[in-house]
Amino acid sequence: MSLKGKDILSAFDFEREDLERLFKLADQLREEMAEKGSLDYAKGKVMLTAFFEPSTRTKLSFQFAMVKLGGTVIDFDVSTSSLLKGESDVDTMKIIDGYDPDVIVIRQKQPYFPHKVKDFVKAPILNAGDGPHEHPTQALLDVYTIWRELGKVDGIKIGIMGDLKYGRTAPSLSYMLTRFNNLTIYYIAPDVIQIRDEVIENIKGKVKFEKVSKPDEVIEELDVLYVTRLQKERFSDPEEYERLKGAYKIDKDFLSKFKHIPIIMHPLPRVWELDPSVDELPQAKYFEQARNGLFARAALVKEVLGV
Amino acid sequence: MSLKGKDILSAFDFEREDLERLFKLADQLREEMAEKGSLDYAKGKVMLTAFFEPSTRTKLSFQFAMVKLGGTVIDFDVSTSSLLKGESDVDTMKIIDGYDPDVIVIRQKQPYFPHKVKDFVKAPILNAGDGPHEHPTQALLDVYTIWRELGKVDGIKIGIMGDLKYGRTAPSLSYMLTRFNNLTIYYIAPDVIQIRDEVIENIKGKVKFEKVSKPDEVIEELDVLYVTRLQKERFSDPEEYERLKGAYKIDKDFLSKFKHIPIIMHPLPRVWELDPSVDELPQAKYFEQARNGLFARAALVKEVLGV
Amino acid sequence: MSLKGKDILSAFDFEREDLERLFKLADQLREEMAEKGSLDYAKGKVMLTAFFEPSTRTKLSFQFAMVKLGGTVIDFDVSTSSLLKGESDVDTMKIIDGYDPDVIVIRQKQPYFPHKVKDFVKAPILNAGDGPHEHPTQALLDVYTIWRELGKVDGIKIGIMGDLKYGRTAPSLSYMLTRFNNLTIYYIAPDVIQIRDEVIENIKGKVKFEKVSKPDEVIEELDVLYVTRLQKERFSDPEEYERLKGAYKIDKDFLSKFKHIPIIMHPLPRVWELDPSVDELPQAKYFEQARNGLFARAALVKEVLGV
Repeated sequence: MSLKGKDILSAFDFEREDLERLFKLADQLREEMAEKGSLDYAKGKVMLTAFFEPSTRTKLSFQFAMVKLGGTVIDFDVSTSSLLKGESDVDTMKIIDGYDPDVIVIRQKQPYFPHKVKDFVKAPILNAGDGPHEHPTQALLDVYTIWRELGKVDGIKIGIMGDLKYGRTAPSLSYMLTRFNNLTIYYIAPDVIQIRDEVIENIKGKVKFEKVSKPDEVIEELDVLYVTRLQKERFSDPEEYERLKGAYKIDKDFLSKFKHIPIIMHPLPRVWELDPSVDELPQAKYFEQARNGLFARAALVKEVLGV
Repeated sequence: MSLKGKDILSAFDFEREDLERLFKLADQLREEMAEKGSLDYAKGKVMLTAFFEPSTRTKLSFQFAMVKLGGTVIDFDVSTSSLLKGESDVDTMKIIDGYDPDVIVIRQKQPYFPHKVKDFVKAPILNAGDGPHEHPTQALLDVYTIWRELGKVDGIKIGIMGDLKYGRTAPSLSYMLTRFNNLTIYYIAPDVIQIRDEVIENIKGKVKFEKVSKPDEVIEELDVLYVTRLQKERFSDPEEYERLKGAYKIDKDFLSKFKHIPIIMHPLPRVWELDPSVDELPQAKYFEQARNGLFARAALVKEVLGV
Repeated sequence: MSLKGKDILSAFDFEREDLERLFKLADQLREEMAEKGSLDYAKGKVMLTAFFEPSTRTKLSFQFAMVKLGGTVIDFDVSTSSLLKGESDVDTMKIIDGYDPDVIVIRQKQPYFPHKVKDFVKAPILNAGDGPHEHPTQALLDVYTIWRELGKVDGIKIGIMGDLKYGRTAPSLSYMLTRFNNLTIYYIAPDVIQIRDEVIENIKGKVKFEKVSKPDEVIEELDVLYVTRLQKERFSDPEEYERLKGAYKIDKDFLSKFKHIPIIMHPLPRVWELDPSVDELPQAKYFEQARNGLFARAALVKEVLGV
């Protein structure tokens, strides 16, 4: 089994066996890169990155992954492109595909954009975020991090906290976790930004879940506390935002009140919701998590390229 | 014969024998890339792309061409450069040339910009568009497309439609077509945006041509209908623009009125003047044309590098 | 001795023996590149360029240096990054470092930025300009140019002219010159933009120096006249700026008044202070100086990578 030539648009595009194989491959590539620096697997292959929205770590980690596999990256610089001339996105993607990239990585503001263009494009497409909809390779590195840190994914209890309504991280992570058994997800957020019904529909019956309003309620139950940003612009009432900040800020003092501290993850960038005082705790795994993006994405790219 | 080390500033820089040799080389590279992906011809060579104006397909197809020939591309990111500090363009190009790129691809708003800097620069320069003046590698892929689709260029009848006055596509295409025999060019445009006198001067006596005002008048005569954009900002009277739009829009219904439909080409990006309904016709060749840019430019780069 | 794995944050990070070894290595790489184009030393190595401020020649010459050493460059495009989301610079650099670049080149507006992040980052950092503070690799190519043109650095007399107060060129150049013997530096500037006290503190007792207000006073004494820009925005009184322009403009007529003309250097870009009429003089070395950036930086990168 392999993902050779497949589009990866959703976290549901990974079966459990794909995930287990990719995690082992990521570990193997980590070792090979530690030993040799860059590898030769993707020699002569070209990745096209098309980021229609800002990105730091997703774009860079795909670039590093491709380069360290021995391949080349060509970046489609959207800001200086003919999109400004009014060209349709589908035309743009068809033309780029005509230059025969071996894989295309797309980020777009528009939900389902990669789904819309995939039939016009020969190259396999990796969805690097389609608006609030999904971000499957973020989920891949998230679950890879859990697998490495806890030695398993089955049976864990995870709290996902922050802006669950408008974020794409929580949906994709939730979907990927349905591939494992006996898991519990706690969605920790105030009502206005709780997880979308559409996400609940997609996971119902596949995983246990519960909505809670504050981290204090469940933190001692958790194996993993997954923090995400709370964006001010989501709140119609700025005072509500300011009032809520206290309850959703994770710092060292807050965590030290509990007998058991779960591992702390965050997709980054963080702003105020995850305080730098947490960095010194052994449970802080978010920089390791970001770094895991290099290996998880390298594993995926290697498989999709079939090299 | 070869173009090794030569600047390509105008479509007139190609003799007929250069074109025939490049078209065959483009076909050969197409086959080799289909078989092997990337090739080794340009290993260790560096292309510098300096796009002082937005571009999607020209820049990307040069990048893909270079990478698939085995070379490396360094992009001079104009938007973050010291040009902002008031440096002269000639200084900038001299300094970049001092870093020993093997070939420089330039797009500039200013007509004759590459001509102005070429004597200060050791590396061969490929003009990727100098304002409304010329775009010789666009002509190269255009004529390559005609050669592939019709099996010949001699003796054909081509209608070039749209903004002929301010565009650089029509001049370069016209100049390249003078290298072939017994051709007829119909310039299809309203008077305000008809082909420039300077272009007529350059082709007079070398090719038959006629100015016509609407596509209906000649379409059944044509082997090729080459559509270009009609830009609103060219019209002093917006109402005239709106009135003209109907007569210069090519869609499937319009084409189906004719007994004979020529092949349809377009340099892209398109806006309203070439309707997506045309895409399904067998005569629609513009995406193939865009793709031909990869192979035509790869052939040119390979020759100029002398590899 | 070698600089393998070392951060280069200040011109003081180079000992005299480092400089002499790097200059010889730069000459050697120049010859090897002239013969073979690109080399293989940095095969499989990755340079990350993170330019938080505009740059042309520094960024491009690092990119060319790395590519011609056989390595790959990944550019962190700050303008489209998550910094816009409010992430701290230190977080950003830690995450990028987690992708295992072999060397990081940073330019930042903030003085001492590379010093601030270096302890969070495994990769060696090359400071490519931290605001007005330092620009050690500019000094490296400057002193390499002097060494090549004059055959020595010991004992020379150099005038550094222009905006000495706010520029980073004059401090780093001064610091590097302290590694040589029996030198004299003339700081040529009006009082409002004379060299900063902090710079004087750092060089006192290590090199002879004098502040002078106009180039005429010392030009016949000099082996090198190093011109830098005078920025209008540094003057609170625009009339004073206009009045001063005459006295700080170097052109052919001005130089021809003197019996002895020193070699003329400039970090570029230039605006009005160094007239193109000087370009034809045999003493004009600034384009050669810019080109030396390729070889001097290649030498440094090769050493820091330990390849």
